[in-house]
Amino acid sequence: MSQPALDFFYEFASPYSYLSAVRIDALAEARGVDVRWRPFLLGPIFRDQGWNTSPFNIYPAKGRYMWRDVGRRSAARGLPFVKPDPFPQNGLLAARCVVAAPQVDRPTATCAIFQAGFGEGGRISDPDVLRPALDAAGLDGSALLALAAGDAARAALRTNTDSAVALGIFGAPSFVTRDGEVFWGDDRIDDALDWACEHG
Amino acid sequence: MSQPALDFFYEFASPYSYLSAVRIDALAEARGVDVRWRPFLLGPIFRDQGWNTSPFNIYPAKGRYMWRDVGRRSAARGLPFVKPDPFPQNGLLAARCVVAAPQVDRPTATCAIFQAGFGEGGRISDPDVLRPALDAAGLDGSALLALAAGDAARAALRTNTDSAVALGIFGAPSFVTRDGEVFWGDDRIDDALDWACEHG
Repeated sequence: MSQPALDFFYEFASPYSYLSAVRIDALAEARGVDVRWRPFLLGPIFRDQGWNTSPFNIYPAKGRYMWRDVGRRSAARGLPFVKPDPFPQNGLLAARCVVAAPQVDRPTATCAIFQAGFGEGGRISDPDVLRPALDAAGLDGSALLALAAGDAARAALRTNTDSAVALGIFGAPSFVTRDGEVFWGDDRIDDALDWACEHG
Repeated sequence: MSQPALDFFYEFASPYSYLSAVRIDALAEARGVDVRWRPFLLGPIFRDQGWNTSPFNIYPAKGRYMWRDVGRRSAARGLPFVKPDPFPQNGLLAARCVVAAPQVDRPTATCAIFQAGFGEGGRISDPDVLRPALDAAGLDGSALLALAAGDAARAALRTNTDSAVALGIFGAPSFVTRDGEVFWGDDRIDDALDWACEHG
């Protein structure tokens, strides 16, 4: 029997993706689940729904609640949290940097960028924010930024976004088991990991 | 020090409200929290956002996911679940029946109606569905339906909906602590009850 596996779809503009990214590895390791880190872009999916920005901006009551909720949950978990300005940040370059890295480095790269963004309020569309964040995490920021501009990184990110659409994903974070079961939201991490263990 | 308290805002058309209604009492009792059951209407709130039906109908990918998610969670909890046809059902009459009952009977009335609706797929806008459901739960269905048509029930339901709007509620179920903290969604019941205990 092969090791249980889970695809983790996340978007760098998404606050709840930040909450999941910083804790999924420990939860997965405790259950022996292999996590595939797959940054993708929500922009094209939102545009297909007729939205030109985050639904948290379009629906103010929902947006106000979300900031409060993420603040509460960050505080409860001892996580730093700064509301980015502007919101949403453009996560394109960050996502390309991550897919430019080998799979083994993607958790480190991802968490470094989320920390720079939601942890410190940095502009993650700016190479001068990404580079030192990646460097400080022990990666080569300049090399990843160079690779991020290449065709391979562009194609890999497009593949992730296309996969997300094909799976019916409409928000982030989302978790997909090997048998195609989709779980949406930071509060579904445990359900997703349990499903991966039970259903292979 | 007074007993911790929580306002439980729910809508009879809402699948996740069903999931919460059938379990909140046991969870609250275990913590000594007093729950005030407050049915309200999402329709006016959705209309203010430009929606003329449930967002689960407007956004099909989200709707497909929701049905799958509610089915999974119902199954995991051993709850019967039937997708209503049409969805959403009109929950106006059901909500008026509940606010027509004294507070002590509202949990029983609520769960009886949710069982008829999401448990059995009945049309909860129909008095001939509501009456036997309420009767079977040991209440007087005919009397509640008569009261539901009266001014007091109409005013009480309007008060709940106005309170929900004033609190910034945009979906159901929502839980509000005495200090005005709002929690949205069946997966936030525990957080809401814990907050009620910690913050009075």
